[in-house]
Formats: sequence, structure tokens, C-alpha cells
Amino acid sequence: MSRESMKRHEERVLEDFQSLGRKVYEQLKRREYPRLDIPNRATNNILYDPQQRQFVLGTQTITRSSANIRHIRSFTQLVWVTYFSNELLKANRSSTLRDLYYSSEAFDVKFNNQEESDEIVTDLEALLAVPREDFKIFPEERSAIFGDLTIEYTTAGYEGQRLNLASHPDGVMIGPALTTSEFVESNAKSVVAIETGGLFTRFIEEQVPKKFSTILVHTAGQAPRATRRLLRRLNNELGLPIYILTDGDPWGMHIAGVIISGSANAAHLGELTTPDAKWLGVWATDITRYKLPSDVMTEEDVRRLTQLENDPRYQPEFWQREIDTFKKIQRKAEQQSFSRYGLSYVVEKYLPEKLKEVAD
Amino acid sequence: MSRESMKRHEERVLEDFQSLGRKVYEQLKRREYPRLDIPNRATNNILYDPQQRQFVLGTQTITRSSANIRHIRSFTQLVWVTYFSNELLKANRSSTLRDLYYSSEAFDVKFNNQEESDEIVTDLEALLAVPREDFKIFPEERSAIFGDLTIEYTTAGYEGQRLNLASHPDGVMIGPALTTSEFVESNAKSVVAIETGGLFTRFIEEQVPKKFSTILVHTAGQAPRATRRLLRRLNNELGLPIYILTDGDPWGMHIAGVIISGSANAAHLGELTTPDAKWLGVWATDITRYKLPSDVMTEEDVRRLTQLENDPRYQPEFWQREIDTFKKIQRKAEQQSFSRYGLSYVVEKYLPEKLKEVAD
Repeated sequence: MSRESMKRHEERVLEDFQSLGRKVYEQLKRREYPRLDIPNRATNNILYDPQQRQFVLGTQTITRSSANIRHIRSFTQLVWVTYFSNELLKANRSSTLRDLYYSSEAFDVKFNNQEESDEIVTDLEALLAVPREDFKIFPEERSAIFGDLTIEYTTAGYEGQRLNLASHPDGVMIGPALTTSEFVESNAKSVVAIETGGLFTRFIEEQVPKKFSTILVHTAGQAPRATRRLLRRLNNELGLPIYILTDGDPWGMHIAGVIISGSANAAHLGELTTPDAKWLGVWATDITRYKLPSDVMTEEDVRRLTQLENDPRYQPEFWQREIDTFKKIQRKAEQQSFSRYGLSYVVEKYLPEKLKEVAD
Repeated sequence: MSRESMKRHEERVLEDFQSLGRKVYEQLKRREYPRLDIPNRATNNILYDPQQRQFVLGTQTITRSSANIRHIRSFTQLVWVTYFSNELLKANRSSTLRDLYYSSEAFDVKFNNQEESDEIVTDLEALLAVPREDFKIFPEERSAIFGDLTIEYTTAGYEGQRLNLASHPDGVMIGPALTTSEFVESNAKSVVAIETGGLFTRFIEEQVPKKFSTILVHTAGQAPRATRRLLRRLNNELGLPIYILTDGDPWGMHIAGVIISGSANAAHLGELTTPDAKWLGVWATDITRYKLPSDVMTEEDVRRLTQLENDPRYQPEFWQREIDTFKKIQRKAEQQSFSRYGLSYVVEKYLPEKLKEVAD
């Protein structure tokens, strides 16, 4: 995304806020009780779209009307959240869901707890079809990135300044500044997203980015939304294939699945998925193929596996094969278990073999 | 620490490894069963030293002898861990506790689980009185840093390269490269360590580093060992006062306590503490003084508080006053609760007031 298109996008969001406000105002002026139609986010309106390879919302909407005593609380909350987000965006100032919850007190807008305010923020996302990061509400969690990519900041105080993301060999954090930066130049040919910090550091040390012309992203477990969106941008804007390397268990598989196909929670947003990203490993079939040190699955692991087996995202043949294998061997293996064959085995043998296999 | 002194330190650790090996070898040559004397890390040999303001080990040692059938397993494990660490250090290659555990399989050295191998690594730390990071075993967890400090890397491939830690406004990761870097130049006058990512980002955005001439460290909860050691270096080498800003609850208080006085687990090491660091807040007394939105403490919170009340680290009057206040008000408050007064209140009012109070 160029700075111009980012700027245009921001202006569009601001216009959306204004037109939302205008709608409420006009209704009041006509002496009507103001009301808003919001996409329905209930389970019965969440569908899996095999073509888009992600969850989407159906066409149902719900009407939130200030004439209805049961709606007036959530209606007021939604108007306030819109006001707060509008202020953030105008001031170019970032915030978190937690900050928003606490800020409400100053305005005497009541939320019973943060879950309630989070829900309203999600309503606003659904209403505008825009992720909350676009109105400056960022997640607390941070992941990291390392590789040959020069970015240019759009953050206040840093405009026009550039950084190559290979400047710091421990990696740099993926926060608001990186997320809103412009991609200037890169010689990378791919991106590898890695679940654990140990392997991320090992890969940098073994010069994987140079040897494989790749950018490394440390997801730190389940990738935060801002990181999933960054992966999508790397895929869309730079045309880089995205590979995901996780522990070999249902949880690792699902880290990959969410990057690829998104979550039901974010069915109202299309901008967080990378349908062409590939799960590189550790597959169930890798455990036997590479004779990895492994552990017996817990009951919880098996339960999770059964859930994923029936999940629409995991219906394609490849996923079902891996789920079947997990069920058959009843074992799981960690990314770091490759150390059994020496510290560089994962880089010298496993990674090139799998990259070749998945690219074919 | 200059590159020369770092190099010297590394050589000293390598010599320690060798002399440990030589000791075992000489005993074997004399046809004795080899044995080693290790500082005893059992609770009855861990003492709190009020002068050093940290836990230290007493003078007891235990003898691990290969002549004793009950010792032969742990003796062999210790010799192997020393071998493995020696190889890492010679190859200038970093690793994690988990990697070490998996690597043992290739050598047919048996550990029942990672707890067992972690214990042996700690034995080696105690034996050499050197933290494991000095023989390249780093924690998985990562925290971050931002501020005016120019470092020069000693990491392979980056030797001599420099980076100013204000180059990336989301912060850069504190990993092996940063930990082993040389401090070249800084105009900072202090360091503020912050528990949560939300406030860390807010502080950068509100230009706290510039306005207060401070370096920000994001501890991401309990500070990882490498981060505690970095804070100590910032204090020792650059003479910067260290302030710690956490949530206002027993857990936050203890994040500060561990940075200041260390943990009982690391009683065998002196290089991880910063006795002159100060807990800046959120104090129990801040909750009432700043009328912060707060929650009732859970039973677990109260139990933790009672433990801390009796902990030797929290005997000084200041800590006891805060513990008393927590017990009296039975409430806790988060760092982000300042948002109740607007997003910049914590920067414009709370921070300068507290910095002044604590510096006095």
C-alpha cells in the first residue's frame, strides 16, 4: 500500500464515521428515534465460503434502535465508540481495547466489563467493514520480523524515515509503526512465519534469510491480527509466497489455519487472511518421516483435533490427511525437536526439503 | 562492557569449562571415580543478604560422585551439559534450554523431561558462578527496548555494525545480539521498564523518551533473565537510574521486586539484579491518590500478597507500607486504568510526579 492509498483509506474511514454520525443526527432532526442496521454476527449468520476460503457473514442485519429500551444501552455505546475512534484517527494516536474500556469512564458511558466494550468495537468493525487497526485500536500482543525489507514510516515524527528490517539481528517488533509503513524495497523471494522464538533466533543465526532469500516473522504463538494483516500485505503487495512453520500438533496446525483462512470471530472482515499461504510443517506425516522425538497427545489435544476435523477450513484433502495421521499416531512433536539431529539439521535438511515439496 | 572485556569474559568461561574437564580427566587418570563439588542450591542454603539486597547461596556444597550409584546419572548429565555448552560457545552459536534437552537424545544422554535438563544447566551455572546466557543458552521469551542508545554488535556477521535503538518506533527485540552488544553512546538520563505493551507503545507515541530523556524497556510481564541483565548493564555501565512501572497489584509489585533483588532460583548468580532500581508504580497508595478505576482483589491476589509480606525482599518500610495499603483497600489497578483521565494523563501528570517523588 503506498502512502497515498493509505491516506485515502484513512480519509474514507473518517468519512464513514461522519456519515454514521450524520445518519443519527438526521434522524434526531426529523424527531425520529435514531437507529442503525448492523451486520448480524451471530453464529447462524457466519458461513464458510469455500471460494474465498474464509468465513464470511451472511446477509442478515440486525437493527439497533434507540426506541427500544433493550437496545438503548448498546446503541449509545456504539455511538460513543464511534466518537472515540474518530478522535483517535483524527489525532493520529494509537490505543488498545483496554484503553478504550477505561476511557469510557471519563464519559460516563457504562460498560460492565471489557468484553462488553470489545463487542461494540467489533460491531463498529462490522458496520464499516474495516478492521479496528484502521481506526488506531491495536492489539497488546506483539510479534517480530527480520529480513531484507526496507520500509518507510508514516508514523508522526518518523515520516519519510526508512529502516531495513535486517538492521537488528534479534528482530524488530510488529507494532503500529511497522503496520502502517510503506514497503519500499526488498530482494526477498518468500516469507517464513515461525511459531517459536527459539527457532526464529536459530534461523537468523544460521543465516536462513540470506541463504533462502526469505523474510522471517515470529508469530509468538497464535499470530496477532496486525501480524496476520502484515503477512497478507507481504503476499499481496510484494507477491511473496508465505510459509508457516509451527509445532506439529493441532494447535500449531490451527496457527497456520487462522493465518490462511481467518477465524469465525473475524468473519465480518476480509483483510486479515492470506488464502495462498501454506503450512510448511511440522506435519503429522513429518513426525514419522523425520523420526522426530515426540510426545503422546493429551486428551485435550485429541479433543481439539476432532473439532478441527469437522471445521470447514480443514475439509480439503491435505488437511484431512494430516488430521488422520495425527489420529493414527496419537503423537505430537515440537519445532525444536529437530535439535535431536544437531542444531543445523532443521536449516540444512528439513527446511529446503519442505520448501521444495510445498512449492511444487 | 567493552568488546575486549566481553571477549576476556568469554575466554574465562571457556577456561572454566576446560579446567572442569581436566579435573574429571585427571581423576580418571589416577584411576579414581571422578567427582565434583557443587554449591548446594537447596532451600536451606539460600539466604537473603540484606547488604547485597538479594538472595545468595550459603557455603554448603554437595559432592556429586560417579562412585555413588545414585549420583552417576546426574554426574554424567553434568559432564555432557558442560561439553554441549563448550561447543556452543566455541561455535559462537546460541541455543535454548529446550534445544539442549532435545540435543541430548543424539548423544544418548537420558533426561526424563526438560525439568531434569534445566536443573543440570542450573548446576553448571552454580559451579561456574556464571549465567547460562554466557555460554549461549538464552530464554525463549523476548522483551523489547526503545530509546536513544547506540549499540555496536559483537554477533557473527554483524561485528562493528551499529544501531541506534530509537530507529524503529515499535521497539526492537532484546535477544542474544542486543544482549552481547557494546554500548557506544547515549544521551538518555534514565530507563523506564514497563510491564505492558499498550503503555510501552503509548509512551513512544507521546514522545516520553525525548521529553524525559529516557530509554523504555518493555518487560512483557515478568522480565526475562536477559532483560534483567540488560537493565543491570544500563545501570552499571551507563550510570542510568532504572524505574519500573507495573500494574498496581501483588504481581506487578513482584515484577519490580525481581528486577531489584532477584529470585531465589537465581541465588547462585549475582549478575541479574539491579539493587538500586526503583518501583515507580502503580503503588497501592497511587490507587487512592489518583482515584484510579480498580477491581476487587481475588483470593489468589490476597494469598500472593501474604507471601510477599513475609518475603525477605519486601521487609523494608516502603514495601511494607504498600503491602499494608493493598491489604487495607483490597483493590488493584492496571497501568492502563489512567486512560480514565484521557490518553495523555499518565504521561503529562502521573509520570513526572512519580519520577520526582522517587528520585527525591
